[in-house]
Amino acid sequence: MKILVINCGSSSLKYQLIDMETEELMAKGLVERIGIDGSRIKHETIGKEKKTIETPMQDHKRALELVMESLTNEEYGAIKSLDEIDAVGHRVVHGGEDFAKSVIIDEKVLKGIEDNVEIAPLHNPPNIMGIKACQKLLPNVKQVAVFDTAFHQTMPEESYIYALPYEYYEKYKIRRFGFHGTSHKYITNRAAEMLGKDVNEVNLITCHLGNGSSICAVKNGKSIDTSMGFIPLEGLAMGTRCGDLDPAIIPFIMEKENLSTEEVNTLINKKSGVLGISGVSSDFRDIEAARDEGNKRAKLALDIFEKRVRGYIGSYMTELDHVDAIVFTAGVGENSIEMRESIVNGLKSLGVKIDPERNNVRGEDKLISADDSLIKIFVIPTNEELMIARDTRELVKA
Amino acid sequence: MKILVINCGSSSLKYQLIDMETEELMAKGLVERIGIDGSRIKHETIGKEKKTIETPMQDHKRALELVMESLTNEEYGAIKSLDEIDAVGHRVVHGGEDFAKSVIIDEKVLKGIEDNVEIAPLHNPPNIMGIKACQKLLPNVKQVAVFDTAFHQTMPEESYIYALPYEYYEKYKIRRFGFHGTSHKYITNRAAEMLGKDVNEVNLITCHLGNGSSICAVKNGKSIDTSMGFIPLEGLAMGTRCGDLDPAIIPFIMEKENLSTEEVNTLINKKSGVLGISGVSSDFRDIEAARDEGNKRAKLALDIFEKRVRGYIGSYMTELDHVDAIVFTAGVGENSIEMRESIVNGLKSLGVKIDPERNNVRGEDKLISADDSLIKIFVIPTNEELMIARDTRELVKA
Repeated sequence: MKILVINCGSSSLKYQLIDMETEELMAKGLVERIGIDGSRIKHETIGKEKKTIETPMQDHKRALELVMESLTNEEYGAIKSLDEIDAVGHRVVHGGEDFAKSVIIDEKVLKGIEDNVEIAPLHNPPNIMGIKACQKLLPNVKQVAVFDTAFHQTMPEESYIYALPYEYYEKYKIRRFGFHGTSHKYITNRAAEMLGKDVNEVNLITCHLGNGSSICAVKNGKSIDTSMGFIPLEGLAMGTRCGDLDPAIIPFIMEKENLSTEEVNTLINKKSGVLGISGVSSDFRDIEAARDEGNKRAKLALDIFEKRVRGYIGSYMTELDHVDAIVFTAGVGENSIEMRESIVNGLKSLGVKIDPERNNVRGEDKLISADDSLIKIFVIPTNEELMIARDTRELVKA
Repeated sequence: MKILVINCGSSSLKYQLIDMETEELMAKGLVERIGIDGSRIKHETIGKEKKTIETPMQDHKRALELVMESLTNEEYGAIKSLDEIDAVGHRVVHGGEDFAKSVIIDEKVLKGIEDNVEIAPLHNPPNIMGIKACQKLLPNVKQVAVFDTAFHQTMPEESYIYALPYEYYEKYKIRRFGFHGTSHKYITNRAAEMLGKDVNEVNLITCHLGNGSSICAVKNGKSIDTSMGFIPLEGLAMGTRCGDLDPAIIPFIMEKENLSTEEVNTLINKKSGVLGISGVSSDFRDIEAARDEGNKRAKLALDIFEKRVRGYIGSYMTELDHVDAIVFTAGVGENSIEMRESIVNGLKSLGVKIDPERNNVRGEDKLISADDSLIKIFVIPTNEELMIARDTRELVKA
C-alpha cells in the first residue's frame, strides 16, 4: 500500500510518498511560492537525483498536478502510474471539537473542516484547497484528514476551559485546543516502544521544540494538557510567536500603537517570540550564533525560551502521578545539543539529569538521561508524515 | 512610635494605627462609598466598641478627616491628639521600575507615582489622592510609599521580559512587574522565622490566594518570579480576573462581540475568573457551597483554580534548586482547609504531602505538612499593613 501525504500551507505544499508495507519513504518534495512569482517544485525520489523545476503555479491544484507529474516521471519519478497511490492523507490544522480522530473525507467532513475556518482562518483554508485539488486529480482515491488538534481532544475540562465567562465557550468554542497533536502522538507511540511499555501505560512530557513549539502532558498514552491554546500561539516563546503574555498587554498595545485587531494579531504571531526579543532572527541557530558572539538580547531570548520549557515541564509534573520520560523532538529539540543540556541542567530540583555524552546526538532516537536521573530523557525525531500515513492506512484498510 | 497605614481604593479607604514598639494594632477601620451616596466609616479602636458613622464624603480628603476624628475621638478613639502619629505609610499599587523599595514621599517621588498612572490607571490615582489628602491634614508628618511591585524588582530579565518586540519594553515598559509584593515579602520574613533561618537563605514558593491571587518564587529571600504580570491580571484564575489566556483570544473576542479596548479590559478584569466560569459568584465560599450542592460549573471553576496553583508551584520548583517551604496566605489560602488539601494532594509527584489534622486550621501561623513531606508547608496569615508600618518605621528612623 502506497500513501501520499500532503501538507498544504498558504503558498507552499509539502508531500511524501510512503510505502506502507515497509513504512519506507519513496519520494518527497516541497512546492514553494504557489501563486507568487518564482514558484518552484523541489522533488526527490529516494535513490535518484534531486530535481528542481521553476514554473508558474497559479494555485494549489496546479501545484498538485506538478507533484503528480514528478511522482510518475519516467526519469526521476517513484511510481509508474497514479493508480499506484492507494490513499492520500492530509494534514489539517484545526479540527475543533468536531474531530477527535482522523477521518475519511466525505462531504460532511469537508463541511466540518470549513466550519472551523472561523477559528483557524490562517490554517484551514490552504488545507481545504489541497483536499479539493486532490479530489479532482485522484477522484477514485480515498482521502483522509489527520488533525493537529485531534490528539488533544482527550484533555479534561479543567485543562481546556479558560477563566472567561463560560458563554464564550458555548457561543464561540473559545477553549484550549492544542496543536502539533500528530507529532505528540507519534512521539508517544515511539517512546512507549523505547520504554518497552504498552502505549496506554506511559506517562510522558513531550517537548516539540521548533519554530513553533508546544509541550504536552501525556497520561496513559493520552494528552491531558498542552501549552498551545485556542490557536497555535499560547505557551512557549517561539520563532515569531509571543506565547504566554499578560492578556491586558493586548489592549494596552492596541491603544498605544493604534493597532487594529488584525494588526495586533500580526504583531503577536509574526513579529514576536525569540525574533522579537533578540532582534536577530526567528531561527534558533542564528540566535545561538549571535549569543556565542556576545549578543545579550540573543542570550536573553534563549534564556526566556529555556525557562518556559522548564516551567511547563515542572507544571506538567504536577498533573502526572509519575513521569516515565521527558522527550525532546522537532528542529530544536532533535538538534540543539546545547539547548537540551541547558534545559535539563535547570531541572535538578526534580531529580532529572542529562548524560552529556549520550546527549551528543542529533536527529536520532536515543536515551540521553544519566543513569541516576529520576526520569528518563529521550531524543526522538518526530515523523508527522509517517503518523499521517499510519492513520490513513488504518482508515482505508477498515 | 505610632504609624498610620493607609490603603486607598477608588471609593474606599482602609486604615490601621499600629504601635510600633509592640507591633500591636491600636485601631483600624474602613471607609466605603467615598463620593457615592451612602458613604460611611466603620471604626474600631481595639478594646472599645465598634462605631459606624454614615455621613456624606465627597472625596478622599473628607474621608481622611473623618478617620482623624475617629482616631482622636474621646469616646471611641485611640489617641488623644494627631501629634501622636509619627508617620504615615501608604500602600501604592504600581511603582513601575522607578521604585525597587519603599521611600519617603517628596515632590520627586509623588511625580514618579504620577508617571506610573499610565500603566496603572485604575490603581495609582486613588493612592495619589490619599497621599495628597494626608499631606494636607498632617503637614509635618513624614509619609512613606510602600509599593506592591517593589518586592518583585529583584526578578531577573528572563522572568520579566515578554516574548514581544523588545522595543515595547523600551518604549512603554511593557514587562512583568508582579503585585502583592508587600504580602509576599511579609510571608517570606515570617516563614524564615518559622524555619529558623536567615531570610537571605530561604527558598520559598508563596501562594497569596484570595479574590486576587498570585504566586511568587523566592530565592534567598528575594522574588525571582511571580504569576502576575504587567497589571494584576496574569496567572491564576481569580475572583473576576481571567489570568492566563491564549493572547489571541483578546482580538478574537473583540471582533466577535464588537468590543472596544476598554470593554475587553472590563471583561477580563471584572467578569471573568471563577465568577465567569461558575456563573455563581466571585467569592470562593459561595462557589464551594455551590459545588457541594452539585453545581458542575462551580466544581469546574475550583478545579481550574487549583490546577493553576499546582502548575505554578511545579513551574517555580524548576527555578529553585531546593524549596524550603510552600506557604499559603490571604483569604482563601489562610481559610479554605479543603482547597489547601485538594491543591497539595495533587503534588504527590513532587513528594509534597499535607497532614490533614495539622491542616485543620484557619488564619494562624502553622506547619501543615506531613513529617515525610519533602517540602514543608505553612499557613501564614498575611499582614500587609504591618509590613507597610515596618518599612515606614525603618525609613523615618533613619
